[in-house]
Amino acid sequence: MDEIEKLNSSTMREDAVAGNGLLNRRALLRGALLSAGIAAAGVGVAKADDSVGTDAPEWMKTPGKPFSAYGTPSHWQDKVQRIFTIAPGRAGTGVSRTPLHLMEGTITPAGLHFERHHNGVPDIDPSRHELFIHGMVKQPLAFSLETLMRYPMESRIHFVECAGNSGIYGAPQPAQVTAGEINGLLSCSEWTGVRLSTLLAEAGVEKEAKWVIAEGADAAAMSRSIPLEKCVDDAMIAFYQNGEAIRPEQGFPMRLLLPGFEGNMNVKWLRRLNVTDMPVDARDETSHYTELMPDGKARQYMFPMGVKSAILKPSFGMTMKGPGLYEISGLAWSGAGRVAKVEVSADGGKSWAAAALTEPIMSKSLTRFRMPWKWDGSPATLLSRATDEKGGGQPTRANWVATYAAGQGYHNNAIQSWSVGADGTVKNVYA
Amino acid sequence: MDEIEKLNSSTMREDAVAGNGLLNRRALLRGALLSAGIAAAGVGVAKADDSVGTDAPEWMKTPGKPFSAYGTPSHWQDKVQRIFTIAPGRAGTGVSRTPLHLMEGTITPAGLHFERHHNGVPDIDPSRHELFIHGMVKQPLAFSLETLMRYPMESRIHFVECAGNSGIYGAPQPAQVTAGEINGLLSCSEWTGVRLSTLLAEAGVEKEAKWVIAEGADAAAMSRSIPLEKCVDDAMIAFYQNGEAIRPEQGFPMRLLLPGFEGNMNVKWLRRLNVTDMPVDARDETSHYTELMPDGKARQYMFPMGVKSAILKPSFGMTMKGPGLYEISGLAWSGAGRVAKVEVSADGGKSWAAAALTEPIMSKSLTRFRMPWKWDGSPATLLSRATDEKGGGQPTRANWVATYAAGQGYHNNAIQSWSVGADGTVKNVYA
Repeated sequence: MDEIEKLNSSTMREDAVAGNGLLNRRALLRGALLSAGIAAAGVGVAKADDSVGTDAPEWMKTPGKPFSAYGTPSHWQDKVQRIFTIAPGRAGTGVSRTPLHLMEGTITPAGLHFERHHNGVPDIDPSRHELFIHGMVKQPLAFSLETLMRYPMESRIHFVECAGNSGIYGAPQPAQVTAGEINGLLSCSEWTGVRLSTLLAEAGVEKEAKWVIAEGADAAAMSRSIPLEKCVDDAMIAFYQNGEAIRPEQGFPMRLLLPGFEGNMNVKWLRRLNVTDMPVDARDETSHYTELMPDGKARQYMFPMGVKSAILKPSFGMTMKGPGLYEISGLAWSGAGRVAKVEVSADGGKSWAAAALTEPIMSKSLTRFRMPWKWDGSPATLLSRATDEKGGGQPTRANWVATYAAGQGYHNNAIQSWSVGADGTVKNVYA
Repeated sequence: MDEIEKLNSSTMREDAVAGNGLLNRRALLRGALLSAGIAAAGVGVAKADDSVGTDAPEWMKTPGKPFSAYGTPSHWQDKVQRIFTIAPGRAGTGVSRTPLHLMEGTITPAGLHFERHHNGVPDIDPSRHELFIHGMVKQPLAFSLETLMRYPMESRIHFVECAGNSGIYGAPQPAQVTAGEINGLLSCSEWTGVRLSTLLAEAGVEKEAKWVIAEGADAAAMSRSIPLEKCVDDAMIAFYQNGEAIRPEQGFPMRLLLPGFEGNMNVKWLRRLNVTDMPVDARDETSHYTELMPDGKARQYMFPMGVKSAILKPSFGMTMKGPGLYEISGLAWSGAGRVAKVEVSADGGKSWAAAALTEPIMSKSLTRFRMPWKWDGSPATLLSRATDEKGGGQPTRANWVATYAAGQGYHNNAIQSWSVGADGTVKNVYA
């Protein structure tokens, strides 16, 4: 019973790791909580007595609900929905966001995966859908879904992030909106499919080829130019999302997955891959998804998403329940590979401490970070900043804004911040 | 363009790695497919021509469907449902299974997570639900959900497997049912919650304590006795499943998670943890979830689930489309830790080859294995066997059956097998 004795005899203390109450997580996980605030302060923890369990709640007194063929969330969770900018029920072009501030962990259930459609969600008959590979190839090919399913598959956990995610963080004044509204064009799934390189090898790519034009089977025929190097690296034709067939909003029956590249390039409802020697200058790589610079020129083809992090708990819309122990928690990610480090500050950036990262840390995937915080009840400013395995980091917001023309909204990976007021309210600030 | 040249000039061949057509996966992923069968045999692969894309399907000619607040699967997938033994819509005691044979990867979407209820699914008001820790503790405690949410959390991907999973594999004759019907009391999720050891440290466990009696807030008050060692090891009070609040069928608003232990002990709708010095001999650890031995005695408290594997593709209900290249794929797992190795045989167990395992391999989680197979069209028998990092392996079915009394249905982790007929049909056999 060594473990038990260790548990009870723990003498570990709430060690500070940075200014304004950031604590050592390892110490807290075992035994130091009584002194840190939750039970000691009696915040919502009642002392139980011997009558425990004699007053069974009414849901224990009657048989429960039946089995179901395909489960749905609890009705108590009906506010946990995608966040719309246009009214739900409308088709056309637009987005809906993942409510990251109401979620935990790293996986996004498919029902809450963000949406970005250019002319609605097509209803594709999978038995009639074909994928064409043509252009500068030795042998143009047409694949049915059934045939593609016979190729060797891979499963990998990757995020998809819209290039326009967090664009509002470039606005002159900080918008008082939730973390989901700011950062929710970001979701993470286990994707399963066939490596694109396998199919390109079968078609036989010509020596002069440099690009692949991917086209979706939606009513916008959404198209993007993709460097051939990416297509023969980790690109995947994905058929499954979190174990089941990919959802209509994410590309049923198949999508292109380009791990770490801006979401728009991960063409949904994938229909054609045209191998070429130059990009096609499609609508969504000229009128959209370019970066307007201060000199009036626009940068095109900025593909990988930068390293980034966001504190989700606490965040706008939440209210702290008085001084005491809290967990600061959020997500970090990078289009270049693995997250190497996330640092958190509770004093507006004066001091920083490394947060705990949830293992296993996967390349081009979301990583959850956590940091215990003993809030003393006075105003505080919280920030997070991530570094990836390639050494990439996040710019300050001031630096990011100075890099681009006013109103440029793509690839915003600036350091974000929240203020906590003495009354416990949390607001968006530019620290 | 080194990658491109490598892609086209690949001289790798379909190297055999074991008898009856098992191939080297690494070779196949790049370039060797033309000779291996899919495109060369023309199975569903048409040669495209210059008119590609001129005949747009009708779903490209009209705006698609609107955005949605919470997405659902494609209507083309409406047969991908949980598998019932009692009619859906009935409550009470029973199970529904995850349709593993229709799925891919390792994550189970919550809507398809298997169900095991003892008196239906309670509809618990989360704001009124409390978790009590009492018994042999220095300070009995009662927690609201809101209070528990303030403790340091963890996120981990773990499987949950019912102790009765694959019980049908002990039947005298092989049942001609799908792999989901055989093995689908098995699901895998990312769980997020508070380590139980943190809460027990706060309550202060007495020196003589050895067990914790966990009770659910369902109408069966489902209870199990759990060794205290497990409770202070990797046990978790889970609130989130795949990023969102845990689903009603899996314990909303909270469940006990005991990674690797039989599913029944992972008490759902968790309400009480009574710390004691002896087990309680609850209904579900006496009348159920015990192992009847040949001498008429029953073994109790066999907690960890054994190492196990199952081929899901191909499996019963599927028909091979003629000779050529296929991928054999399935899942492996162990209640003792990580899967170390999965071997596949295509010749009834005469020769074996190591399958590719999807990284990262996580402890007490599902691991997907894959093995390319060139089927020559003659009858074949496929088997898989897993080994875990502790050296544990799977018994043959004959050895497993000989260990127990007839009809014993728990903890069946025997090696499973499928036969493939010359007509391409797949059947359950005891190889």
